[in-house]
Amino acid sequence: MKKFAILLAALAAAAIAPSAWAQFAKPDKAIEYRQAAFTVMAQHFGSLGAMANGKAPFDAKVAADDADVLAVVDRLPFTAFGPGTDKGNNTKAKPDIWQKTDDFNQHADKMKTAMANLVTAARSGNLDAIKKAFGPTAQTCKGCHDSYKEK
Amino acid sequence: MKKFAILLAALAAAAIAPSAWAQFAKPDKAIEYRQAAFTVMAQHFGSLGAMANGKAPFDAKVAADDADVLAVVDRLPFTAFGPGTDKGNNTKAKPDIWQKTDDFNQHADKMKTAMANLVTAARSGNLDAIKKAFGPTAQTCKGCHDSYKEK
Repeated sequence: MKKFAILLAALAAAAIAPSAWAQFAKPDKAIEYRQAAFTVMAQHFGSLGAMANGKAPFDAKVAADDADVLAVVDRLPFTAFGPGTDKGNNTKAKPDIWQKTDDFNQHADKMKTAMANLVTAARSGNLDAIKKAFGPTAQTCKGCHDSYKEK
Repeated sequence: MKKFAILLAALAAAAIAPSAWAQFAKPDKAIEYRQAAFTVMAQHFGSLGAMANGKAPFDAKVAADDADVLAVVDRLPFTAFGPGTDKGNNTKAKPDIWQKTDDFNQHADKMKTAMANLVTAARSGNLDAIKKAFGPTAQTCKGCHDSYKEK
């Protein structure tokens, strides 16, 4: 029962489906995975941002492709903040993530809601819609990084 | 957000065509991106493999979620093997990738075809179908790694 209790505690802290967490072979792998998912997310978010801010020419196909990636990838990092993943693999995650888990999860939810709007905008092929949705999404990234990511 | 500002500045400075390749601020970023995409791919491919091989209990929802990620992520690394990305960020990519590009691309296409079958199987919720599709897909990974990835 001890193992089961640890698992339950882990699930409560991580607020994720049991199987998602169980898939990581060890904490370092979870950290590597969430860093990788953030890297992929940042690339495609940055691509939309460059178009939104006029730093790159608008290309509706690229924007739609970015949206398809973001629609799937945005939730992935948050499956990998389980207990024991607060240290290792040069993580910049602050300990508060595991102390203020509800607040951290709310930040994540805000991002996913804003990202869903950006995805819809990017799939519409309408640059003005992308411009409108990009800033609020970027703010949710910044808000969470300011609180929970080391500089 | 500092990283993002740097990315935007780099994009502005580069002033290049809006292809997938042009989105990378510099070669190191492309290498980091393809490594990250492979890491995400490996995690979800490994999850299906664990179920296919009886190392993890079968969960149709997890399998379908893995499929949704793999359906989007499988093509991503191959947008990031552009010129100048043969060195840096501890890449294990062999120089032959840029010498035998047609062959490398054929390997990538074989993987994507096999992965599409695995994705279909994983979405079907049928473990036997996953078992049948997993091995051939794993073979395409191994085939490409044997030729084009340093040990």
